[in-house]
Amino acid sequence: MRGTPYRPLHATDVTSWDLTTDVAVVGFGAAGACAALEAAHAGAEVALFESGAGSGGASALSGGEIYLGGTEVQRNAGFEDTTEALRSYLTMVGGDDPDLEKCEVYANESPDHFTWLKEQGVPYKGTFLPGKIIEPETDDTLIWSGSEQAWPFAEAATPAPRGHTIQYVGVGGGRALMDILEARVREAGVDVRLNARAQCLVLDDDERVIGIVVRIDNRPVHVRTRRGVVLATGGFGMNRDMLAQHAPKTLRLSTPIGENDNGSGIQMGVGAGGNAVHMDEFFTTCPWIVPPDLVKGIFVNEAGQRFVNEDCYHGRVSRAMLDQPGSKVWLLVDDAIFGRPLDAARISVAAVGETWEEVERELGLPEESLARTVHTFNRYAAEGRDPLHHKAPAWLKVLDDGPFAALELNFTKSTFTYFTLGGLATNVSGEVLGRDGAPVPGLFAAGRVTSGLPRTGHTYSSGLSLADCTFFGRKAGRAAAAGPPR
Amino acid sequence: MRGTPYRPLHATDVTSWDLTTDVAVVGFGAAGACAALEAAHAGAEVALFESGAGSGGASALSGGEIYLGGTEVQRNAGFEDTTEALRSYLTMVGGDDPDLEKCEVYANESPDHFTWLKEQGVPYKGTFLPGKIIEPETDDTLIWSGSEQAWPFAEAATPAPRGHTIQYVGVGGGRALMDILEARVREAGVDVRLNARAQCLVLDDDERVIGIVVRIDNRPVHVRTRRGVVLATGGFGMNRDMLAQHAPKTLRLSTPIGENDNGSGIQMGVGAGGNAVHMDEFFTTCPWIVPPDLVKGIFVNEAGQRFVNEDCYHGRVSRAMLDQPGSKVWLLVDDAIFGRPLDAARISVAAVGETWEEVERELGLPEESLARTVHTFNRYAAEGRDPLHHKAPAWLKVLDDGPFAALELNFTKSTFTYFTLGGLATNVSGEVLGRDGAPVPGLFAAGRVTSGLPRTGHTYSSGLSLADCTFFGRKAGRAAAAGPPR
Repeated sequence: MRGTPYRPLHATDVTSWDLTTDVAVVGFGAAGACAALEAAHAGAEVALFESGAGSGGASALSGGEIYLGGTEVQRNAGFEDTTEALRSYLTMVGGDDPDLEKCEVYANESPDHFTWLKEQGVPYKGTFLPGKIIEPETDDTLIWSGSEQAWPFAEAATPAPRGHTIQYVGVGGGRALMDILEARVREAGVDVRLNARAQCLVLDDDERVIGIVVRIDNRPVHVRTRRGVVLATGGFGMNRDMLAQHAPKTLRLSTPIGENDNGSGIQMGVGAGGNAVHMDEFFTTCPWIVPPDLVKGIFVNEAGQRFVNEDCYHGRVSRAMLDQPGSKVWLLVDDAIFGRPLDAARISVAAVGETWEEVERELGLPEESLARTVHTFNRYAAEGRDPLHHKAPAWLKVLDDGPFAALELNFTKSTFTYFTLGGLATNVSGEVLGRDGAPVPGLFAAGRVTSGLPRTGHTYSSGLSLADCTFFGRKAGRAAAAGPPR
Repeated sequence: MRGTPYRPLHATDVTSWDLTTDVAVVGFGAAGACAALEAAHAGAEVALFESGAGSGGASALSGGEIYLGGTEVQRNAGFEDTTEALRSYLTMVGGDDPDLEKCEVYANESPDHFTWLKEQGVPYKGTFLPGKIIEPETDDTLIWSGSEQAWPFAEAATPAPRGHTIQYVGVGGGRALMDILEARVREAGVDVRLNARAQCLVLDDDERVIGIVVRIDNRPVHVRTRRGVVLATGGFGMNRDMLAQHAPKTLRLSTPIGENDNGSGIQMGVGAGGNAVHMDEFFTTCPWIVPPDLVKGIFVNEAGQRFVNEDCYHGRVSRAMLDQPGSKVWLLVDDAIFGRPLDAARISVAAVGETWEEVERELGLPEESLARTVHTFNRYAAEGRDPLHHKAPAWLKVLDDGPFAALELNFTKSTFTYFTLGGLATNVSGEVLGRDGAPVPGLFAAGRVTSGLPRTGHTYSSGLSLADCTFFGRKAGRAAAAGPPR
């Protein structure tokens, strides 16, 4: 008898157990690391299985930025952030179906979570880097990482910068964050097994998860878990079948993030009775805000229409692009703000002209489309306002300094990175919720294998997934360790 | 031991069977009726369980319109429809993830399916009613029921009218269709049980579906099925939890269609190992195309922008409305085309003016937004073209005959009916596909409990769900009857 991720093994089909532990954690990204750490700190015996050759997962590919509120770093930088403001912002982040309990708990415990991260040795210089950036290349550790100052978020929640990045020079602080978490995990005595791919869960007669089968050295290793299994395997950005079935819009995009995000954790959870929700949702972004003056440009779709306030989070703008008809959008800039985009090879200059009418013609658009959009935008920008799309005055510039250019962001040709946001439903303790709403006994999950705090790409902010991974990873680890051994 | 839709009962927990049959069909809409009929015609003993007090389901609430191609009705009306044109159209209907096999089979067998429907006694007068209508109030039986003549469909598939409606005077031919199908079902000797709510499936050791528990007179009736269970229970438009988890956009809309569409069939299928796909997708429409001259108006969103060619299918236009920012859109009309909308109580006149600038002001929009949109539209309409949104010349009218009006379609206040389009994955035989891709033995499904031919509201056409229900309902019934008894 052989199980698959979607098809758990029954305990009676396990002839012998190769390994016994209290808690098995699957996946060594930030969620798995934090779950393992907290389970170990709670006194549990913990084994951690990672399919790759080392720790990291998608977390190591990130900027190492965690979305936090109410910290002394914010206060030192002159920002008074409140639990209520954070909760309000997170509620908007939840889209049409926010998990209000998770928003509440995360807002309340966010300062303590920051303390815990520092206690693990994650360095925070505590300095604020102003401006609109994707991730700091300096060793500063507080940035604006979302749409806090932009419409409509600024109206619903008092803005504060909440992107707390690890102190690190250069891009890619996520690897450094993972190195620290890995060191703590190893110090805590967690039995770490790399190149160990989870194959299926094991359920007993009561449909309780009591073990997991892991493939090591091409042999199945049957792991008996006395207290629980924590799934921390990431999303399904690398699983073409699942993408087609649940989030087919992503199939147009070039660059999934997360080498091992093959959906197997969601499959195991669903196979054990878990509920997968919001499976159509995904994050995407194209690095169009570098150099930052480009944010003073305006985006138009193939009908020459604006569609979003360009000063909100770059991922929110990118996600809105994908809702436009056609296959591309254009960023319109004048000479004063023009700069070669970060990914100039993939964000091409589609048209240049001495007038906006010339740009319009060169793009093959009819008269009175794009040019009219710019003229109307300019008229109001000159008054310091954007009555149609609500771009904040700080980013408004009359685009009248020719020559003018249209930069093309093409959904298939430009670099749109993405990862999935749908996944297992969990409660605030990290218990996987069954389709009937009750927890699946013995099964826990955190990070992108779940549908967590950030629920749509439209409302995403940088640092929210690592917030989800680290905070609810800890919760899941503690909850897994807490039950009586069976 | 008691099962739930999501939690099947194990055969060993059934102490005695109350009823034995070859095939159990769950749900007495068009899909269930056709499945029962074909199973019975194939020689199987069939029991049909319906939770309501009579036949009908959402099918009886429809216009009784079936999307068909290659029929003599089309030829008599002067339309040469081809298998290829129908297949191409259906492929577009499938959105980002069309089921190419189903498109192929349906296109090939559509003429035969029409013959079968007539053999069952469904009357077709065979006359064509031209124009743009929701459903015929005359007894004509062929109409344009989708986006065939509109951009971009007309470019990809040779247009033909394919809405084959039952010969019936007035709206609501779906009830008449169901009465006929019910009569055939009863003549075929199907054991019909009304007020019989399916509670859970029964699985044997091999995870084969071998029965179903049905609640009748408030007692569980254990039904042993020798050959198979066909789920034909409809979508989940009445299940608020499932809507929130999978299709939260629908929660803004007022009017789900299908009293008993509570998602229980999807739950049973998933509980037995089935794969639920495209769960975020839904059909919606607001009856804005009556009187038809309104189609010559143009829709703008809250930024005063057009967003769709208004001459495509009313449901496609309505679904596009829901993608606009804000809570409403406006239909702009001049005096020449103005008419009180069908649902005038819920589609209100939001502004009237002697000029478009006055309408713009009255709606609280900034200068050079809505009025500019109309002027640009008018400029090109005068030339008989719509270069930005590709409305066909027949529906283009310069909107210059004041006074002018903006009709408000409000997502929460206007009548937006909807039903869900996500559901169980099935193959062309109607077998429910498990999450690993292989059929779940003994389990079949058809209609809105599945993700079938129509996969998104953006590409829907009237008659596609009844096509799915009747055609793949027949397939499912035949497949269920075909297996060896167990």
